[in-house]
Amino acid sequence: MTTGIARKKKFVIASDSFKACLTAKQACDAFELGIMQIYPDSIIVKVPMADGGEGTVQALVDATGGRKVAKVVTGPLGTPVTAEYGILGDGKTGVIEMASASGIEYLKESEKNPLVTTTFGTGELIKDCLDHQISKIIIGIGGSATNDGGCGMASALGVRFLDKNGLELPRGGGGLRDLDRIDTTELDPRVKNSQLIIASDVLIPLYGINGASEMFGPQKGADDATVKLLDNYLKHYGDVIQRDLGKDVALRPGAGAAGGLGAGLFSIFEYSLRSGVDIIIEYTDLEKKLVDADYCFTGEGRIDFQTEFGKTPYGVAKMAKSVNSRITVIGVSGSIGKNISNLYTNAFDAIFSITPGPSDLETLLQDGQENIIKACENICRLIKSVEFAKN
Amino acid sequence: MTTGIARKKKFVIASDSFKACLTAKQACDAFELGIMQIYPDSIIVKVPMADGGEGTVQALVDATGGRKVAKVVTGPLGTPVTAEYGILGDGKTGVIEMASASGIEYLKESEKNPLVTTTFGTGELIKDCLDHQISKIIIGIGGSATNDGGCGMASALGVRFLDKNGLELPRGGGGLRDLDRIDTTELDPRVKNSQLIIASDVLIPLYGINGASEMFGPQKGADDATVKLLDNYLKHYGDVIQRDLGKDVALRPGAGAAGGLGAGLFSIFEYSLRSGVDIIIEYTDLEKKLVDADYCFTGEGRIDFQTEFGKTPYGVAKMAKSVNSRITVIGVSGSIGKNISNLYTNAFDAIFSITPGPSDLETLLQDGQENIIKACENICRLIKSVEFAKN
Repeated sequence: MTTGIARKKKFVIASDSFKACLTAKQACDAFELGIMQIYPDSIIVKVPMADGGEGTVQALVDATGGRKVAKVVTGPLGTPVTAEYGILGDGKTGVIEMASASGIEYLKESEKNPLVTTTFGTGELIKDCLDHQISKIIIGIGGSATNDGGCGMASALGVRFLDKNGLELPRGGGGLRDLDRIDTTELDPRVKNSQLIIASDVLIPLYGINGASEMFGPQKGADDATVKLLDNYLKHYGDVIQRDLGKDVALRPGAGAAGGLGAGLFSIFEYSLRSGVDIIIEYTDLEKKLVDADYCFTGEGRIDFQTEFGKTPYGVAKMAKSVNSRITVIGVSGSIGKNISNLYTNAFDAIFSITPGPSDLETLLQDGQENIIKACENICRLIKSVEFAKN
Repeated sequence: MTTGIARKKKFVIASDSFKACLTAKQACDAFELGIMQIYPDSIIVKVPMADGGEGTVQALVDATGGRKVAKVVTGPLGTPVTAEYGILGDGKTGVIEMASASGIEYLKESEKNPLVTTTFGTGELIKDCLDHQISKIIIGIGGSATNDGGCGMASALGVRFLDKNGLELPRGGGGLRDLDRIDTTELDPRVKNSQLIIASDVLIPLYGINGASEMFGPQKGADDATVKLLDNYLKHYGDVIQRDLGKDVALRPGAGAAGGLGAGLFSIFEYSLRSGVDIIIEYTDLEKKLVDADYCFTGEGRIDFQTEFGKTPYGVAKMAKSVNSRITVIGVSGSIGKNISNLYTNAFDAIFSITPGPSDLETLLQDGQENIIKACENICRLIKSVEFAKN
């Protein structure tokens, strides 16, 4: 690629949000400001990213020229919340973040109680999509407050979860204790004709030592004894699904995601399960944008050993390297963990922290934009110097 | 320089210490470990640096194959301290850090009192050099506890500071109040035949608004009223020097350095005043090592707007760029300040913090070595990727 003629450099900026600091779009803008300091004449393509979690709706709406829809639904504790979902530019595809209806962010610490929290609102969002003639729904299922196996979601779509007296169960993970049978006769018929794409990188089973309750129950407010109860209820729930719906969903990877919402979705929808970041990569046409790029910048608030497991920067980095062997991929983060050597294998070339020195989190969050700008400027200074020396 | 044949890259590592964390040598070793992760077959030249302050003796002794001499002398408060100075490999050149005899590090906060602290021990170190047949002395004068105009130093070499009754003054900056005349008849005759190189980047006058007492008195323990007293005493001291020694030293740049030690040295020695880092650069032959280098790494615990004024990394960076227009100069620091844009003009190409994320100083000091290694490794990853893309 060496040439005597100065060719414009192409930078692709595909960052996730910096949590509690900058949205993905704001982060990409900050990256751009830094790069522009050193490469004002470059081609810069910004692609705000997400990984199926927070920001997924925004990223896909932005990427496709779609729109957002606000809808009052049942929150995790049964009280109303105003949720948002997206309709993509094609008008036929919906995108939902389950956390927008049933997320743990709605709860104070003292309110966390997976025995009672429900995914009913998530089902209402799905129903609202169907009411909008949407037949393809992308659903990101991170950040749930629930451990109800998705029975709340299914209830909102007409499925009835009954006790031995034929009465509907109370909502929440605790209600499943008395589950006797599942009646799908009143399931919304449009569900059968819709296509669901589940964005999840949590590939755990419904129950057991790696299941929903054991892995995520505690952070949703369950003590040890409650975790055991919830785990038993979900196992029972899986058994009843198999008997009454004829679907063996409990041990499928992802069944335990979002407190078992995975299993609930598996049991009533035609679905595919995909990594969230891969979905965003597809809908944003990121691959095409990377093919002829010289540099790819990606980032997130934190990059650590978990980044390998479905986080945006890693997905972007892998994609970049797979389509362009000469691209330089740079990760930028507020905080870099230890033991990240795997991230350098066919993914990142280098990973930089934006932190300028000793500082507390609060200050760093305040200075996040400025620190991203400076870090990107500085990285570009180094790049430019090395490019110059090689010419 | 582009070539199809892989040429070994040459890295020069010329770092100062990371204060309270790593000596210059330890820092250079950490830089090397990081670089070696990515460039194991490169040529790496390590040059532990200093700027006339702490580490200067070690850097020059190491660079010239010299040795260190320990000597019990009078500390800043009059009690004995064990100081060290260096004799360079030529056997004829001494190197002294004044702080080793008269430094503020010897004092607890409550002991700081520039009315009484003395440079007498510094004079004893000079005398010990003379006793070792040393005729050329490099003296770094940072980190002093004193505001005595160097009269303690001169006393140790035989100069007598007398009151109107012909009695010797008490030691310390306060003693100068009663200075009536200076008697040099008993000055060590070897002083006249010796050559002094004063390493200082503090170019302030002896007294006045930018003088020793106003600028540095407070951090040596003087309250506002004491600062005024000390300033008056130093002005008077300068007047008496001019009258009795025939030398107008008070307003020369550097006269006020180290609480006026500059003026004291000026008044009895043949001297040259040089930037500390330039002296180290000369004695370490750094220029020659940089001429054919591809990359220069330099660093210090902190890099900020003051770095421009005589700090090691800036001196190294300027030298590197002045002798090698294709070299890439990289600064690495524990903490990067704001408003450092000047540092990029004919000096640094890029400046990176080693801080991986939100953290307190104590933790960062503990992890300093590891963080330097990781930062240098990461920087080299980026360099290697850009080099590859250009080939």
